[in-house]
Amino acid sequence: MDELLEGLLDLSRAGATSLTSRLAGQLRSLISEGHLKSGRRLPSSRALAARLNVSRNTVTQAIEQLAAEGYLDVSQSRRPVVAAGASLLTTRQRGDVARDVSARPRLSAWGRKLAKSNWPPVYRDLPRPFQPGLADEREFPRDIWGRCLRHAANRRFRWSNFTVNDPTLQDALLKHLATHRGISARAEQIIVVPSAQAALTLIARVMIDVGDVAWIESPGYSGAYAASFAAGAKVVGVPIDADGLRIASNSQPPKIIFVTPSHQYPTGKLMPIGCRLELLRFARSVGAAIIEDDYDGEFHYEGRPVAALAAIDPDALVFYVGTFAKSMSADIRVGYVIVPQSMAPTFVLAQRHLGLLAAATLQSALAEFIERGTYLSHLRRMTRLYGDRRDCLVRVLAEEAGRRLAVDVPAGGMQLLVRYVGPTDDRSLSRRLLEAGVVTRPLSEMLHHRSRERGLFLGFAAWTEAELTAGARLIGRHIR
Amino acid sequence: MDELLEGLLDLSRAGATSLTSRLAGQLRSLISEGHLKSGRRLPSSRALAARLNVSRNTVTQAIEQLAAEGYLDVSQSRRPVVAAGASLLTTRQRGDVARDVSARPRLSAWGRKLAKSNWPPVYRDLPRPFQPGLADEREFPRDIWGRCLRHAANRRFRWSNFTVNDPTLQDALLKHLATHRGISARAEQIIVVPSAQAALTLIARVMIDVGDVAWIESPGYSGAYAASFAAGAKVVGVPIDADGLRIASNSQPPKIIFVTPSHQYPTGKLMPIGCRLELLRFARSVGAAIIEDDYDGEFHYEGRPVAALAAIDPDALVFYVGTFAKSMSADIRVGYVIVPQSMAPTFVLAQRHLGLLAAATLQSALAEFIERGTYLSHLRRMTRLYGDRRDCLVRVLAEEAGRRLAVDVPAGGMQLLVRYVGPTDDRSLSRRLLEAGVVTRPLSEMLHHRSRERGLFLGFAAWTEAELTAGARLIGRHIR
Repeated sequence: MDELLEGLLDLSRAGATSLTSRLAGQLRSLISEGHLKSGRRLPSSRALAARLNVSRNTVTQAIEQLAAEGYLDVSQSRRPVVAAGASLLTTRQRGDVARDVSARPRLSAWGRKLAKSNWPPVYRDLPRPFQPGLADEREFPRDIWGRCLRHAANRRFRWSNFTVNDPTLQDALLKHLATHRGISARAEQIIVVPSAQAALTLIARVMIDVGDVAWIESPGYSGAYAASFAAGAKVVGVPIDADGLRIASNSQPPKIIFVTPSHQYPTGKLMPIGCRLELLRFARSVGAAIIEDDYDGEFHYEGRPVAALAAIDPDALVFYVGTFAKSMSADIRVGYVIVPQSMAPTFVLAQRHLGLLAAATLQSALAEFIERGTYLSHLRRMTRLYGDRRDCLVRVLAEEAGRRLAVDVPAGGMQLLVRYVGPTDDRSLSRRLLEAGVVTRPLSEMLHHRSRERGLFLGFAAWTEAELTAGARLIGRHIR
Repeated sequence: MDELLEGLLDLSRAGATSLTSRLAGQLRSLISEGHLKSGRRLPSSRALAARLNVSRNTVTQAIEQLAAEGYLDVSQSRRPVVAAGASLLTTRQRGDVARDVSARPRLSAWGRKLAKSNWPPVYRDLPRPFQPGLADEREFPRDIWGRCLRHAANRRFRWSNFTVNDPTLQDALLKHLATHRGISARAEQIIVVPSAQAALTLIARVMIDVGDVAWIESPGYSGAYAASFAAGAKVVGVPIDADGLRIASNSQPPKIIFVTPSHQYPTGKLMPIGCRLELLRFARSVGAAIIEDDYDGEFHYEGRPVAALAAIDPDALVFYVGTFAKSMSADIRVGYVIVPQSMAPTFVLAQRHLGLLAAATLQSALAEFIERGTYLSHLRRMTRLYGDRRDCLVRVLAEEAGRRLAVDVPAGGMQLLVRYVGPTDDRSLSRRLLEAGVVTRPLSEMLHHRSRERGLFLGFAAWTEAELTAGARLIGRHIR
């Protein structure tokens, strides 16, 4: 028997690993493949060492390792024994192993539905005009950002793991938002998360029970649909007209209402104050919370940016969501939400239970980037640049396709909606344009109610005027 | 009337803001506070400019801004009119505003239960011995990490927003895991998320329907309880004995089984191979998925680290979860999960729908940190250091409190469990120790089934031998 074992072991092959791990590895395989069965007693380490011509220490260490892993039972005075149940082969051959496909784990109902979602759209290759939602990464001051990151990493030894939301970032952001968005809050109300989408997930999970109604704008941001749906909400698309949400109170009242009042997504329209007040009033009357997604509210080209909804009525239950992915770079992926003060402790707990944490290093670097004024000067420079790009795209589209496309000129933001005059299939138009080299998002994919509106959603912020002009001409050729 | 308006406006106060924004701000307040009511016609811009002694341009711009916000209606030829519904005061005084507390938005059932959770424990002030789960931040090579971050930020212009999981990090991590944890997978199976907890959230959401059963070890990691519970699971604590989970198949079969086979949390025990195989067999037979949380599997002090559960049976449905928060620094907050290949596209979609994204800059910096070898050499150095610290703590605890405390010496990891011999209230003991200056986690707070086991969970990795010795002596004084 011992000769058999000896014959099965071969330590002669050279390799990067030590003799000990080679011996342990081979013994492990012999046991798991069933060549050494449960109860089989091995030779003594002294005998095995002699026959394999290795030091006794090598054998002892390998046996200790396998005993630790449970392959062998060892006792002080006796030779090691192969442990019960250590054979993988035996396992696989046993009749009680259900190989039945029906016993394969299934995804959750939500998991199974994910495959049918058309959001987010994924484009192969590098981004091209007019992929929406992108800042111009070429204009981002990467050198300064890199220095801020390095400072953050080198900053004096800190134990930061328990402050999931960095107070220095909360303070810097609050000062910025007070000046530029009219928001007044306390620093601890700012919850810093890995993306604006994570903020929506967090709010939905804390506010929504399965079956609750969530309102989103239609046309509207599909990410809000996705986050509410993931939390189990019944999501209702509420049509928007020139003044914003067409509030109808005859159906089941909503628990949350998702809106984009600075620049409606995708129409780019500013929600007028009358509509804002009506929305606040309605939400209060039915006990709904409002999620104000100010995804690109920093970029406003006509007049000054309008005060956030959250700034109008401090008593209202408004969750203000923002992100650095649009104002700085998609690389950064830090979002935040300002929650009502009474809810802040609950939100920090929820954030930890769900693991929605932004790296401390990133938060600290962002605080420096804001405090040294680079954030604001970058915003100002991009506002001028993006404004010019908007004008350029509007002008060329009018020249190239003015008869068939009506442009909703947005007061700000990073993209615009062109509506098709007359019936068309905007999905197939968008597909043809993609083949021709430009990315567009069909309006019909952003509708969450039955509607015949058709059009294309075009991002303009990330491309130069030359790139925009070429792209708009291409659209013109396909439409004429 | 115009004189009244003029009397209400006061542009004389100096300030940082421009005349235009001061004028717009004051008009906005007058409208929202109800001093200028709906339908009220303002003077012409020429007249207003003359009376206020400012340029007409200032007035025109202020009026355009308020028109954009919806406070004023303007038409080409006529004087501006205060818009309908623009008064906040009127809103508040209207009878239909429900001030009723019952209409206040309520948290979800989950949100309301959060306040009762005792996880995660939060300690004020700086961390002290023996707070579990902390790496020694003082030993982390921040300078090299800072350089990696800066390189990542400066790396040639990339459009990274569509690769939510950086292929360079996936490749580097895979190579590391293949060598050191025996895992074989494809790069695209690695999903990179903002924390290990986010990985648990992601898996639970994709696999669990409301009411499904999730098994966790007892005593066990409360974060696994939290993530499963957040997804709507019925969480069952399964007692562990010397060999691991005590599998009982007479109850509702689980959909997911959460285990920590490398170093059981909190006992530190290695799950023997026989038990690993039995677990894989059982999971397969009932169609359950296994979550293998290898939170600190890198640090193993006796023999070599044991191959991961995910490496034993490539056909099994195992989600392997890891994190850089323990192996590098809590600052970094990047976790990952290796998912079965067939599920990878679904997990990437789920990751985007929930917003569980890790910053591209961090991912790129981590890839460099691993590829240049710094990660491995840091792990090796910390393994030696933490091993010595473990030995030190075990020794001093035996000297100081050996009669009352039995130490489960862990084969690896960053913390150890001491069991109290005889009945005691470990919660109040832990509270007294906290007041005296050391942090401990009572075993009873980590039990998820009825059990009389009592003890203290002590982190040893983050403190020097002098700090550990002082802390252990303090425990000894309180226990004797």
